[in-house]
Amino acid sequence: MSGTQTLLDEIAGVGADPARGGYSRHVFDHAETQLREWFTERATGAGLEVETDRNGNLWAWWGTPGPDAVVTGSHLDSVPGGGAFDGPLGVASALAAVRALRERGVTPARPLAVVVFAEEEGGRFGVPCLGSRLLTGAIDPDKARRLRDPDGVTLAEAAAGAGLDPARLGPDPERLGRIGRFVELHVEQGRALADLDDAPIAVGSTVIAHGRWRFSFAGQGNHAGATLLADRRDPMLPAAAVVAAARRVAATVPQARATVGRLVPRPGGTNVIASTVDLWLDARVPGEGVHPMVAEIAEAARAAAEDEGCTVTVTEESSSGDVTFDPALRDELGALLGGVPELPTGAGHDAAILAGHVPSAMLYVRNPTGISHAPEEFAEAADVERGGAALRTVLERLCR
Amino acid sequence: MSGTQTLLDEIAGVGADPARGGYSRHVFDHAETQLREWFTERATGAGLEVETDRNGNLWAWWGTPGPDAVVTGSHLDSVPGGGAFDGPLGVASALAAVRALRERGVTPARPLAVVVFAEEEGGRFGVPCLGSRLLTGAIDPDKARRLRDPDGVTLAEAAAGAGLDPARLGPDPERLGRIGRFVELHVEQGRALADLDDAPIAVGSTVIAHGRWRFSFAGQGNHAGATLLADRRDPMLPAAAVVAAARRVAATVPQARATVGRLVPRPGGTNVIASTVDLWLDARVPGEGVHPMVAEIAEAARAAAEDEGCTVTVTEESSSGDVTFDPALRDELGALLGGVPELPTGAGHDAAILAGHVPSAMLYVRNPTGISHAPEEFAEAADVERGGAALRTVLERLCR
Repeated sequence: MSGTQTLLDEIAGVGADPARGGYSRHVFDHAETQLREWFTERATGAGLEVETDRNGNLWAWWGTPGPDAVVTGSHLDSVPGGGAFDGPLGVASALAAVRALRERGVTPARPLAVVVFAEEEGGRFGVPCLGSRLLTGAIDPDKARRLRDPDGVTLAEAAAGAGLDPARLGPDPERLGRIGRFVELHVEQGRALADLDDAPIAVGSTVIAHGRWRFSFAGQGNHAGATLLADRRDPMLPAAAVVAAARRVAATVPQARATVGRLVPRPGGTNVIASTVDLWLDARVPGEGVHPMVAEIAEAARAAAEDEGCTVTVTEESSSGDVTFDPALRDELGALLGGVPELPTGAGHDAAILAGHVPSAMLYVRNPTGISHAPEEFAEAADVERGGAALRTVLERLCR
Repeated sequence: MSGTQTLLDEIAGVGADPARGGYSRHVFDHAETQLREWFTERATGAGLEVETDRNGNLWAWWGTPGPDAVVTGSHLDSVPGGGAFDGPLGVASALAAVRALRERGVTPARPLAVVVFAEEEGGRFGVPCLGSRLLTGAIDPDKARRLRDPDGVTLAEAAAGAGLDPARLGPDPERLGRIGRFVELHVEQGRALADLDDAPIAVGSTVIAHGRWRFSFAGQGNHAGATLLADRRDPMLPAAAVVAAARRVAATVPQARATVGRLVPRPGGTNVIASTVDLWLDARVPGEGVHPMVAEIAEAARAAAEDEGCTVTVTEESSSGDVTFDPALRDELGALLGGVPELPTGAGHDAAILAGHVPSAMLYVRNPTGISHAPEEFAEAADVERGGAALRTVLERLCR
């Protein structure tokens, strides 16, 4: 049995998060390392040659690595408490497709590779698509090396711990130059397909511009009982104002999304006025609207901080513009799969990072809950297999 | 050298929290256990007999334990990232006072004990003054045994780990009956004394009513990029509304304090709409105003949750009424110390729990920063020694 669902079932127990529900698999942690080993074993078993690049991305090659390769894959890390499909579905589909092509006696006319990108979610070091950004030079390697996880460990330290040379993190033009076309299969992260009739698969059209900003508020930690309201400089107040402002401002911008999902007061005691609060704003708007929207939210943050005698600093942690996937490749895949729908998305992907360098495409698999980045994320087993079959069809054509 | 400051200096390195600043010393953790060992050694060295009661409070006896004892002491746990004085100052002063009385050849006519109460801050299990509440029967032992720390460990489990019998947690009337009078010395948690001329010491008058409520919001975790605003049920929105409502409502109530210092979104990812948010409201109002104030804030929480399609449950975790310290004892101490000021406080103390059962008093030592529950909490070394001397004077008189 070479099915995609079977491969997903093999890793169903890895990185389960009993506290949050779902999975917490973060780059180079125990769970993600187990998944790397699983991938290496399965890819090797399928006759592929596995190598780790200077940025911690895994590449499994069918045929001699070289230019004009057809590359597919996704990632194995998750958001904290994420679903079972976001990332692993693309990796498992790719492995299943390779097995199926071998069973059918196909010999690719050009090299084929399955890639697992590192830290796609930014769940540990804060920058999403970190592996593909490093590969393509979209992030300064010095900045990347200094990124810290919530425990204060730098990317350089974590990479060294995983056996990489931190000094070699960064652009890899020779490796990037091997990619002729890139296709990533992914679970849909909304319910557009579920609302259509009989549409288990779609092809990606665009990814909207997005970024992450850290808002760091500082006030004066103090006793919650002994400190009169008039004497307070409580950073929780302006932090709460930003949560409200993000929603209020985004509601005035067409198609905008603004989210505060992570907020950390310190010291975090019930009977303690916080001394600092850090929160992260995830902001997305099609076109040029992200930075003006964030500027308006930052202005609200400054006003609220000033009202409370607090300070605030706003730091851009990552930012990406709109991406339109290669129209010719998109149309070719759509036709090949019998005229499947085209889908825009508000979710970022490694394929959107690569799209600035090589023709790239995405396939989406129907998600009946419409929910993602949460344990309820789902795809029916039949749709999972349809996705694997679609990817096999695409790879077989592209490898000719 | 028997000075209070010297004793404080001995523990200056225990439980320092490099991430938050200040100290994190929570009941039965490594740091607090080290402090218990330090106390036992110093008390034994001062000729006291140390025992641990069924609730994990430490008692160091000078003379045969028995009725009409004079008891003094405080606690050694801290809030997360707390100061060096809140708790340890009272314990160190007591030990120094005993040493000084011995050096002066005093033999107390009645038993004297130095007590270290467990979990005064509620920093681990959420209920402040847990050791004195258990001792006096102010908390149901079954409820107490089921309290959980942030890692999910119950008080019963932690107590067993510390060598206690969890089945025996609970009221201890025989031990409570030994206490004739109780005096707790504490660093001031505001700047009333600093704003007076030459007032290093005060005697406590009242503690205002206070309590803690947990607000648990539930919505739908989802993808921060793929989920349109209209499709969201984001519990961070009503949580932020409660932070604002707490301040807004408290500002309409004379002398009220309302604080949200602890707020935990889950799963807590930057690119993830939270599925749940828990926050804790610390609310304090002199007289009968706490419950009406919390009811108004809870109503705002329900309205904000409903607006966002979320749910909220509000749970009272602890609650205490106004306390007036024994007027006769307060006046006796004030006169003995040369007419020091009387000070009301918004901070809770074990002495306020005991005050419902035995004549109890508090002494405060000037804090030039006015800040507490934070690393900036401070007392000048000269004032620390003045506090120790004042406590010695008081104990010598009360033990006659």
